[in-house]
Amino acid sequence: MDAENKHAADKVGAATASLRPQQDECRWDGVEVLQYKQEGSAPFRDVTRQVLFDDPDLAAQVRYFEMQPDGYSTLERHQHVHAVMILRGRGRCLVGDRVLDVREHDLVNIPAFAWHQFRANADTPLGFLCVVNAARDKPQLPDESALAELRRDSTVAAFIRT
Amino acid sequence: MDAENKHAADKVGAATASLRPQQDECRWDGVEVLQYKQEGSAPFRDVTRQVLFDDPDLAAQVRYFEMQPDGYSTLERHQHVHAVMILRGRGRCLVGDRVLDVREHDLVNIPAFAWHQFRANADTPLGFLCVVNAARDKPQLPDESALAELRRDSTVAAFIRT
Repeated sequence: MDAENKHAADKVGAATASLRPQQDECRWDGVEVLQYKQEGSAPFRDVTRQVLFDDPDLAAQVRYFEMQPDGYSTLERHQHVHAVMILRGRGRCLVGDRVLDVREHDLVNIPAFAWHQFRANADTPLGFLCVVNAARDKPQLPDESALAELRRDSTVAAFIRT
Repeated sequence: MDAENKHAADKVGAATASLRPQQDECRWDGVEVLQYKQEGSAPFRDVTRQVLFDDPDLAAQVRYFEMQPDGYSTLERHQHVHAVMILRGRGRCLVGDRVLDVREHDLVNIPAFAWHQFRANADTPLGFLCVVNAARDKPQLPDESALAELRRDSTVAAFIRT
């Protein structure tokens, strides 16, 4: 790096440093608590979304999702993968054809095109970090044929909400 | 998606789903606890590194770093950015020309070319998630001129370890 670039780099580094402290539990200074999705766009219940990092210099986004007790995310799949860490509470999630019990700090990998859905237990919220590629495809919802296939497994059939 | 791709996608999704439960505090099933860096390559003390997600389909890596009490990471900078969430303990970090107090769940953005260093408080470890682009440049260490510039601020001068 030449001297001019070095100077510019120093200024950039100093100008945009930021700390966003946690305020209440899993609520952050300067981070808006958003609707999970547009109402009526897909089935879900009692879910919020917070975008923790969305930096044009980062090839990924870091989001935090939280379900109230018994709340659930949309049953969906897509080409992009999810890297998930549970931050709060307990619940279960469908990944592919497996229903997994999850709790604080557990790691969940959701591979490309795996059907997935998260649900909080009845007595606790469930909150998790979810890292995704900044450039990604849109989720697909299951059609009747996909639902019938998923429901061939009785555990999966009992778990999913549609 | 045509039927053949749909079938292939279903198989992929089912085959590589994975849950890695937390075992002890911030230690995970199937995640190796690694040296932070090669000994002697750069100054640091009492730091470990764990790679939580390193998926070829993800444009980012998710790592977990942990410093023992008074341990510190290398003072360095680079073009790639860091998206950091503190997971455990308390400490301080230099970002650019600021020394920040950090604790559990705080978010820290480290922009391109900002000098940065983390240090655990004397009475607690400090552990944090750090999301980076999978494709990234190598860290730069400060030369004497950069150190002199950093040390013009007395708080920074007292904080950094080299």
